[in-house]
Amino acid sequence: MADKWNKIEIGAIGSVPRVELKESLGLTGCEVSFNKLEAGHASPFVHHHRNNEETYLVLSGTGEFWLDGEIVEVHEGSCLKIAPETARSLRASPESALTYICIQAEKGSLKNYTRTDGIIDKDITAW
Amino acid sequence: MADKWNKIEIGAIGSVPRVELKESLGLTGCEVSFNKLEAGHASPFVHHHRNNEETYLVLSGTGEFWLDGEIVEVHEGSCLKIAPETARSLRASPESALTYICIQAEKGSLKNYTRTDGIIDKDITAW
Repeated sequence: MADKWNKIEIGAIGSVPRVELKESLGLTGCEVSFNKLEAGHASPFVHHHRNNEETYLVLSGTGEFWLDGEIVEVHEGSCLKIAPETARSLRASPESALTYICIQAEKGSLKNYTRTDGIIDKDITAW
Repeated sequence: MADKWNKIEIGAIGSVPRVELKESLGLTGCEVSFNKLEAGHASPFVHHHRNNEETYLVLSGTGEFWLDGEIVEVHEGSCLKIAPETARSLRASPESALTYICIQAEKGSLKNYTRTDGIIDKDITAW
């Protein structure tokens, strides 16, 4: 089953500070984490990456990124791509916790997607 | 700026049926989409992939996946990895819309991550 598909349950979104999925789900193309910063809290350090592009998806709350010294405000529905070499940090606003997903994938690794990678199984009916 | 980072706003999550991020954000390591199936609705076809592993993250609602004939129930916090060759379809329960994120990344493409790809910038203070 784990070869064909795998499932885990992380519970209510935002119920824990961080859940990393790669090891538990057996991901091989990306790392995905669910994250929650409490109101007024910041990520504990500035960091960048060697090869991985990061995509941040803000699910709720408000906050701001620090990106090589630039301040970028975020809220529900804000989606960011951050290049590997860009130094980054993140903090929740004093008023609200910030919940977000972070995806790491190797820069330049995606060759095809959706219409050029997906194949419709016309002869199969699921429902 | 787009070389170092890029941001788009998709609005309230679940406010539209589908938003694809790769082109608008300039992603190069994965494709990410936000999706909403209305109550009782199903994805319009069964499909599989050539090379991309898919990760599904259920944000709200209840529903079920059809995975090579197996039924897998999902709800908030359900996270699935689906191998490229697995035929898949998805439907929302009759009672609730299903909102979820789908990530496509090439199977086997992630070499390092987090502690082996991230570098802490000890000499930089953001806040």
